[in-house]
Formats: sequence, structure tokens, C-alpha cells
Amino acid sequence: MKANLPQGTRDFGPEIVKKRQYIFNTIRTVFELYGFQPLETPAFENMETLMGKYGDEGDKLIFKILNNGLERVEKHEQAKTDFEKILEGKNSKGITERALKYDLTIPFARYVAMNHGQINYPFKRYQIQPVWRADKPQRGRYREFTQCDADVVGSQSLFNEVELLNIYKEVFQRLEVKVEVCINNRKILAALAEMCGGIEKLTSITIAIDKLDKIGIDKVIDELRLRGNEEPSIELIKTYLQLAQQNNDNAKTLDALKSLFKNSEIGLEGISELEYLVNHVDDIKIDVTLARGLNYYTGSIVEVKPVDVQMGSIGGGGRYDDLTGLFDVPGIPGVGISFGVDRIYDVMDELNLFPETLQNSVAMMLVNFGTAFEKKNLEILQYLRSNNISCELYPDVIKFDKQLKYANKRKVGFIAMVGEDELRDGLVSVKNFTSGEQQKLKMEEIIGFMSISKNL
Amino acid sequence: MKANLPQGTRDFGPEIVKKRQYIFNTIRTVFELYGFQPLETPAFENMETLMGKYGDEGDKLIFKILNNGLERVEKHEQAKTDFEKILEGKNSKGITERALKYDLTIPFARYVAMNHGQINYPFKRYQIQPVWRADKPQRGRYREFTQCDADVVGSQSLFNEVELLNIYKEVFQRLEVKVEVCINNRKILAALAEMCGGIEKLTSITIAIDKLDKIGIDKVIDELRLRGNEEPSIELIKTYLQLAQQNNDNAKTLDALKSLFKNSEIGLEGISELEYLVNHVDDIKIDVTLARGLNYYTGSIVEVKPVDVQMGSIGGGGRYDDLTGLFDVPGIPGVGISFGVDRIYDVMDELNLFPETLQNSVAMMLVNFGTAFEKKNLEILQYLRSNNISCELYPDVIKFDKQLKYANKRKVGFIAMVGEDELRDGLVSVKNFTSGEQQKLKMEEIIGFMSISKNL
Repeated sequence: MKANLPQGTRDFGPEIVKKRQYIFNTIRTVFELYGFQPLETPAFENMETLMGKYGDEGDKLIFKILNNGLERVEKHEQAKTDFEKILEGKNSKGITERALKYDLTIPFARYVAMNHGQINYPFKRYQIQPVWRADKPQRGRYREFTQCDADVVGSQSLFNEVELLNIYKEVFQRLEVKVEVCINNRKILAALAEMCGGIEKLTSITIAIDKLDKIGIDKVIDELRLRGNEEPSIELIKTYLQLAQQNNDNAKTLDALKSLFKNSEIGLEGISELEYLVNHVDDIKIDVTLARGLNYYTGSIVEVKPVDVQMGSIGGGGRYDDLTGLFDVPGIPGVGISFGVDRIYDVMDELNLFPETLQNSVAMMLVNFGTAFEKKNLEILQYLRSNNISCELYPDVIKFDKQLKYANKRKVGFIAMVGEDELRDGLVSVKNFTSGEQQKLKMEEIIGFMSISKNL
Repeated sequence: MKANLPQGTRDFGPEIVKKRQYIFNTIRTVFELYGFQPLETPAFENMETLMGKYGDEGDKLIFKILNNGLERVEKHEQAKTDFEKILEGKNSKGITERALKYDLTIPFARYVAMNHGQINYPFKRYQIQPVWRADKPQRGRYREFTQCDADVVGSQSLFNEVELLNIYKEVFQRLEVKVEVCINNRKILAALAEMCGGIEKLTSITIAIDKLDKIGIDKVIDELRLRGNEEPSIELIKTYLQLAQQNNDNAKTLDALKSLFKNSEIGLEGISELEYLVNHVDDIKIDVTLARGLNYYTGSIVEVKPVDVQMGSIGGGGRYDDLTGLFDVPGIPGVGISFGVDRIYDVMDELNLFPETLQNSVAMMLVNFGTAFEKKNLEILQYLRSNNISCELYPDVIKFDKQLKYANKRKVGFIAMVGEDELRDGLVSVKNFTSGEQQKLKMEEIIGFMSISKNL
């Protein structure tokens, strides 16, 4: 049987795992430095937990798990009836009780609802786990990918936004990825919708604005006309969007917004929230065209873009009013951010930002000259490992040049050799595998040589 | 809708994730110190990759994923026919093309077969990932659990066994779990089967011996009689098993084995392999009753048991001849070990072996006395974080005692307070939240105070 991989999935070999781990560890370290706590939920949830939460299109992309034991004869009649429902596009617990998680937010909401009584609010959790979507695979879009979220729930304080924005800045600074952190506020968009005829206009306005980057202001205006917005509304939205094209600093943008929304209570509330954030966090930019497609955001929204690479957002998030209402626990507001790890990986790979040290799979390889030297080699291995230096003995006794070829492919930093001369003299020959520098050393001198030789 | 969790699955809240991460990180660190490289494979594989690899019982426990798009009308007739196959207990790609992985070994074999030409052998990989089984949930048995494997493939050298045994010893030493590492060799069991009438007896003998711990030697003998073994064979097996009850040291066991198997070439080979291992690794014990149920082992086998807790094995592994033959790439032998993380967790929890520091969710909490102090608090937070001290400001301005209650539940190490006096004097009040010790300090003095106060 020929081995192959399901469409839209990936194996991560050693080099890629290390690079990904470097990103995850950086994010995790910063999350914990800011007092966020890890949470992990299962890969699958009960169907009813997930279905209906992501819209009709989302529902279709959920991977459902077939119930086990359908082959039992007594279940056949019922199973056939139940299967009809699946063919009708409905759910049927008789066929599938469980489904793979589609994002981390709904399982988090389910967790909070289930543990509401025990949770110490405000609850600051982070979660780094894979999710699955039956999307058509294409470049940069996978059926299994890792999400990386941090949320604070049970607190309305804008200070949480300050912390989350600082997390973005600190993570990307540590990764050495230059980014632009843009913020906006859904309350301002809500005000715009109200002034255009009512809050029910919010979705269509949001969708149109979301396309600004791709299709330009004129086509956005065309689309708004098509969607039945009238001329005064169109003019208002145009004036609003043009604010973005004036290249204003935050202070000027805030002034312009205050004048535009001077009669809207909710608009002014959004503006004052923006003002608070730019007063408390350096180097963030108000972008009035930022909309964030998802509907559940109700306050601050944020998006992060890389500066040196042409690419969409590599992070985003926002504030929401009600996390767990769907699970019968109303009144828990929150704010969260997410990192797009696959895209961050691509940016860092393109700009060569991964530390070189990640490539060394093992610091030192001992050449195997035969069983007579094995005990001495074991002693060296244990000595190096007790000093936290990764190392290995080539396990088989094969030709020297074949062992070197292996070491070369493995990108080892150093090789060590114990042959008859060395065994007799109580020494080890150690060679910097990059520079070629070689010395005969006492075992205790190896580590010193490695650190000096590396820095040359 | 009431929130709930699928049967047999678990949420891991902050404290549990940290304890689990402590185990994973310890294992990962040791794997890498020994030159093992990380690999990650997707959660699901194509059906044909998994089916038929785990026996009939195993196949039934594989979670299959329902294909998406079955609701499309043009697929209905075919889908109904295909579903009949599912009801007959067969596979049908029309209904389910993919399934969740059942272990890490088969996906690893699939990876090796797919990348055979590019892999630098011997290939030392480790893999720490969840797997899924539709087992009936019961205490200590879950439908999602994490496996933790290390394998060397493409090398026949027994030195690989030496390294893997040392990994076991080092991991458990670092975790401070006292263990007994037992070894045996399948070649000896094969010799026993041959002497009992033929190699085809191996499975029944293995199964019987595997039960020794549970049912005792007499019942094992009864079972062997029932399985049709004749008296001379029974006597031989009895003699063999009694070796285990004599409490011999390794040298005596080896002598006894050599005499028992003096006429069996394969037996003597197994014995000499055992001898090599006890000569190269300290503190391992030959246990002739160790069999390891799985059929694919062909040489060394190993099992690790905790000493201070009554529990089954917390680790096991062995040597196999052919990893990838099923995927059309024959001739790749290997040896591997596995850690039973859930059981290790239980042992460590029972014996209180997790470091106390894991419980501190955040080192320092700043009390929030109002927006007037926010900028000063931000300055302190950034200062502490730049010194790698995790900290947070309570985000909402609420009563002092409510903030303390939160800090208490969170098990913070220290709290810091900036009120009007402190702001005027340029100081911070810092309190050791355990001892109650409190001082007014300059910001730069906080870290010194924290490290001294902690050690008192």
C-alpha cells in the first residue's frame, strides 16, 4: 500500500517543528508573563456544542465523527432512518454524536459555562491547540491548523485591552517581526449604521468596509448603493472612509471622529475608548476602516499586519459582550486576541528570522570506532548530557566517511573521536564541524572548547 | 443549551496543564539531550492507512470521520449504497475517507515510508501527541489521551537500546519517580515456543505469561494445558517461569537461562543481547516473565513500573524488525519506547512530586486603586516583565478586599500597591502574600525583596 497524507494536512518534520515551537514558546512565555493561564479542551465536542455557532457555511465545514458500533445489527433500521437526515443536511445523533472543534472560542465558552461556579473571575486564559475545518485546501489554507488565543472574561475594564495590545507588541518584538498594530471600535461602526438608518445596517456596512483594502473606495461605494443605502448615507460613509486616506496621526483622527459623531452617544463612547487606548499604549494606530468581519465583537477591535512582507493580518481580536449566553450562562463579557501562527511562520521564514541555533539537531556526535570504545564513549555522553549538551554516539560501526556524511546531513555542531591513541592517552579528539578546528582534549576540557570554538 | 463534554474526554484547566507540561517538558528535554528529533503528524489519516493495523478489535475502536458534502443531492444514491457497507462493518470511502489516529506508531511508519528517500538514517524521532480510541470510558481510560514515543529506525545496533534505557532512567530521575526498569528479549520467548513444539506457539505462550502477575503461576499452567500444550512443554515453561520467583540477580538469571536454552541458537542470541544490556546500563533488571502483548516486537523488550505506588507499567517498548513493510518500504528495523503520561501524572500526584512553584499562576498582582494610578502601575508591570517576572494589575477598580480574595484564589506570590502616599513618595508597597511581610520600596528594589522574601 502506498503511503499518503489526507488532503489539506501536513506532517511537520524536525526542522519545522522546532521553528513552530519557537513561535509557540515565545507566545506562551509572553502570555504567562502577563498572567494568562493555559487551558486545553478535547479535540472533539458534542455536536450540539458546535452546530449553529458558525453560520450555515461554517456548519458545513465542521468535521463530524461517525458513531462507532453502527455495524451492530439491532441498530441498522434506526441507522438508516438517521442517515436520511444526514443526506438532508440535518444533524443526527444516531449517526454522529461528536465533531472536531472548529475554533477555540466555542469550546472555551463551553468550558466557562460548565465551570462557571468554580472560576475565579476575571479569568485570563490562553489556549494553543489545533482546530479542523473541511475547507477546500489551497495555498496557506489547511484542514488542520493551530490557533493561539488569549482572552480575559468577566471584566469590562479597558485595561485588559491595554494588556492584550502590549502582548502583541512584546511577542512580535521578541520574534523580531516588525508589525503595525491597528485598532478601531465597533461602537463607532454601530454609530455609523445608526446614522445610515439603523443598527440593522451594521452588517452590510461592515462587510462593505471589510473589502476596502481589496476593491478600493469607489467599488465599496458602488456596493453600498446596490445594497440599498441612500445618498445621504453614502456621503456619510464616504466622509468616514476618507478619514483613512488622509494619513492623519491618532490625535487628528480622533478630532475628526469627534466632529463626525458629535451627536451620537454610542459613537462618542467608542471614540473615548480609542482615545484611552492610544493614551496608554505606544505605537498603535487608529484605522477607521478596520471592521473585523465576525459579528460578535461589540467594542474595541484590533488587527496586526507585518510591515516588511505583503500579507494579510497575522493577528486580530476584539471585545465581546456575551461569551456564554448560548450555553445558558449570560452576562460574561470579554476581550481576546489571536495569533495566526501559519502566517507568522511564513513571514519569519521569508525574512530569515528564525535563530540559526534551531537548525542544529544535536550539538555533538561521537564517531563509533567499535565496541572496544563503547564504554569510554558512554562516559563522554553522560558527561556532556549532565552539562546539558545534546549528543549521541553513531550507533553502528560503519566506515568513518559514512558516519561523517550522516553528521553533515544532521548539521551537528561538533564531532568527537575516541580511537586507540585517545583511549591510551585518556583524551578525546574534538572537531568543530563547521570551522574544521580540531584538538585533543581531556574530557573536562570539551565544554570549554565547544563554547570558545563556537564563538570564533 | 446546557454545556457538556463528550464521554471519555477531559478539559485540562490551568493547574493540570501546568503539571502535564512539566512532565512533557522533562521528557522532551531528555529526548533532545539524547539527539532525538521532534515529529508531528496530523490528527487524522486516510482510512486505509489505519484500518487493519490494530487487529479486529482495534479497528472497531477507530474514530472515523464522516465525509463532508453528503447533503449534495447528486451524491445521495451512492451514499445510501455506501452506508450499507458501514452497517456491514466494512469500510466505505464514500462515507468516511479519514479517521482519527489510534496511536503514533502507524502514522510514524507512514511518514517514514513517504519520506524514505530524504530521511537521514538512523532516524531518531520523538513524538508527543494525542491519539483517540472509542474505548468504553472507565477510570484511567480515556477516549483522547497523549502518547509520548521515541524510536530509532534504520539501525540494528543494540547501543540504541542502551540509549533508550538510559532515557527512561534519566526522565524518571528528573521527575523524582522511583522506578524499576525490567527487560527481556522476545528471542528467548521464541526459543521457548520452538522448544514447546514450534514458533506458532509463541502467541499463546506470550498471552499466558502476560497474565502471570494477575492470576499466578498455577492458573497460567492450567491455561497452557487448556490451550493444548503437552506435559514436557508445560514442565519447560514452569521451569522457565520459576526463574522469576527465585529472586536471582541478573548474573544468576543469565546463567540459568544459558543452561535452559543451551541448545537453542535463537535463545542464546536473546540471552547474549540481555547480557550486553545489563553490562552497559546500571540498575536494570532481567524479568523472564516480561512478554509485552503486542506481536510486532522481535528482540529486546522493556517495561517500567513505579516502585512506591501499586500500578501497572508507566512505560514500555521494544525492538521490531520491520516498521514500514506495510507501506511497501521493507527492511527498516527499529526500537522504541513509550511513556504512559496519564499514569505518570497519577503517580506523581499521589506522591506529591510536582514542584510547588507550578501552582503559582502569577508571581505578582498589583492592586488597582483607580485610574489615577494606572500609568504608574503600567510602569511597574513593564519593569517586572522585562525582568521575567509574571505579573498583572487587577483590571477593575473594585473594593480592596475583593481584589485580595481574587489574589488569594489565584495563589499569587506577592501583591504590590500604589496608592496616594506611594505615588507622592515614588514608592511601591510590596507584600509577600504567604508570609505577610510588607515593605515600601523603590521600584528597582522590588525584585531583590521578592527573591529574599521567598527564601525565608
